[in-house]
Amino acid sequence: MKVFTEAQVKAHYHMSDAIQDIEHLFENMDGISQTTRVVIPTGDGAKSMLYMPCVHLGKQQGIIKITSITPDNPQHHRPTTQANIIITDLETGEHIASLDGSYLTRLRTGALSGIASKYMSRTDAQTLGMIGTGGMAYEQLLGNLEVRPIQKVLLFNRTTEKAEKFLAQVAEKHPDIDFEVVSDVSDLVKRSDIINCQTQSTTPVFDAADVQNGTHINGIGSYRPEMKEMDNRLFPKASQIVFDDLEGLKEEAGEFIEADEKGLFSFAEHDADLKGLSRQGTVQRDNDSITIFKCVGAAHFDLAVALGAWEKLKNNE
Amino acid sequence: MKVFTEAQVKAHYHMSDAIQDIEHLFENMDGISQTTRVVIPTGDGAKSMLYMPCVHLGKQQGIIKITSITPDNPQHHRPTTQANIIITDLETGEHIASLDGSYLTRLRTGALSGIASKYMSRTDAQTLGMIGTGGMAYEQLLGNLEVRPIQKVLLFNRTTEKAEKFLAQVAEKHPDIDFEVVSDVSDLVKRSDIINCQTQSTTPVFDAADVQNGTHINGIGSYRPEMKEMDNRLFPKASQIVFDDLEGLKEEAGEFIEADEKGLFSFAEHDADLKGLSRQGTVQRDNDSITIFKCVGAAHFDLAVALGAWEKLKNNE
Repeated sequence: MKVFTEAQVKAHYHMSDAIQDIEHLFENMDGISQTTRVVIPTGDGAKSMLYMPCVHLGKQQGIIKITSITPDNPQHHRPTTQANIIITDLETGEHIASLDGSYLTRLRTGALSGIASKYMSRTDAQTLGMIGTGGMAYEQLLGNLEVRPIQKVLLFNRTTEKAEKFLAQVAEKHPDIDFEVVSDVSDLVKRSDIINCQTQSTTPVFDAADVQNGTHINGIGSYRPEMKEMDNRLFPKASQIVFDDLEGLKEEAGEFIEADEKGLFSFAEHDADLKGLSRQGTVQRDNDSITIFKCVGAAHFDLAVALGAWEKLKNNE
Repeated sequence: MKVFTEAQVKAHYHMSDAIQDIEHLFENMDGISQTTRVVIPTGDGAKSMLYMPCVHLGKQQGIIKITSITPDNPQHHRPTTQANIIITDLETGEHIASLDGSYLTRLRTGALSGIASKYMSRTDAQTLGMIGTGGMAYEQLLGNLEVRPIQKVLLFNRTTEKAEKFLAQVAEKHPDIDFEVVSDVSDLVKRSDIINCQTQSTTPVFDAADVQNGTHINGIGSYRPEMKEMDNRLFPKASQIVFDDLEGLKEEAGEFIEADEKGLFSFAEHDADLKGLSRQGTVQRDNDSITIFKCVGAAHFDLAVALGAWEKLKNNE
């Protein structure tokens, strides 16, 4: 068993790789087998262990992502979520690699937003508005930068200092982009071509009335029924709503669960998924319409990036 | 994440440790939380991945055992079953260690037979009969040697050459024990104080009529409904039948599932488990009676030995 740290994975596997590997998986999902994730509570509140196994019968490789959720951790300057991915060669039965899974999880989630923006946002989208500048934000930025000619990035966070800190970090890495912290989320929403939400808010982080025609929104924050970062009054106005994983959505995406109950949206009548868009391969949108992508994640996305990263890493030891 | 190979685990963690750690766990099972194991088929027949997570809330440590079953492997001189155990510190959320799990699985299974022999067999048991000398056999031998004054070990295998090869290997390591390969299983059964079965046989490997009063039998081989290594006609004659894990037994132990159907035994009326015997701590048997222990394994046994091994290993790097 070879162990690769976050720094090693980061050095050899990037956003462009993740987008490519996930879209490649979308082309042929035959032989992907996974179970519903296993959750074992390990303390108060959300403290828990999550286990997400997935195998690729064609490639004869399997992974399991093992994730700890430790809500108290930020007080101790440790991340809330820590993931590890074990890869097994199904041909020989050997457990061949352990990859730090935290970066790969952020990367695949950013890649999913990137793929959504690639097929759903206006092709000339130049302004990205980011609501939430926490742990998931940087790879969300990267996903969008990869697919659209973004020149301006507006940043909003409930605690403005955190948005300013994020700006300081990313401005250095991306000198060609104009970053700006905004204190009024309404201002951000009105000025953005793409809005990317990554919060764990239990109430909407923007007002549906502020969303301009022509806007595409990615929502990746809500992953429990009580989380509702997107204003679901927007859903009836959207020309296209796309999911990464419908089954997960029904269980986890609070704003959609509520919208389904209130009649603002219907799971039963819904069948548009990111895989379909990716296979189609073309942007099909009216430049004036509003489009929404909601992501909750699934084990096969972890499989795509873990196997992709392993391919790079094993040749670069 | 620190990685420990089979050789490293073997060097620092032994049968006496495993027996002690499992009996220690039996004393207090509060705060042990596990799910039913997850199985994903990965090819023809039994080819599959098994995932067995378990957490210890009191110790704030969790494990998952990841096992690949590759039935073709022996043809390629690789083991059929390969296991890896990942340990997570639930206090910090960190994934701290990867332990080769194959030896630990064999060891904990040997320890369970050892604990059963410790509380169920005659205290003066001197002759051990082993039916099956495959991959699990050596730790089964160790478990019995640890708890009883065994002087004579009879070995039977369907393919006699394999029993002879096993003898050559173990005789060197245990010069004080008299090993003997027998070609007639009936001879072995009649002469043994303890019989230990570790086969995957779908038909009984001994005849109930040959079992002498005073014999204790450990059966660890059958782990699927079609496997029936113990002659279940013996069950009505047994004064005591004890399991390691009743719920697993009902799903997996072929000879007991069949016995329950035929009325030779009743799961519904059964409640004797190894934990109860260990807590009681005394041998309660008539020297003339026949006793049976059946083991299928469970994730909390893996937890006991993995955490025990980790304690030793982290201090011996």
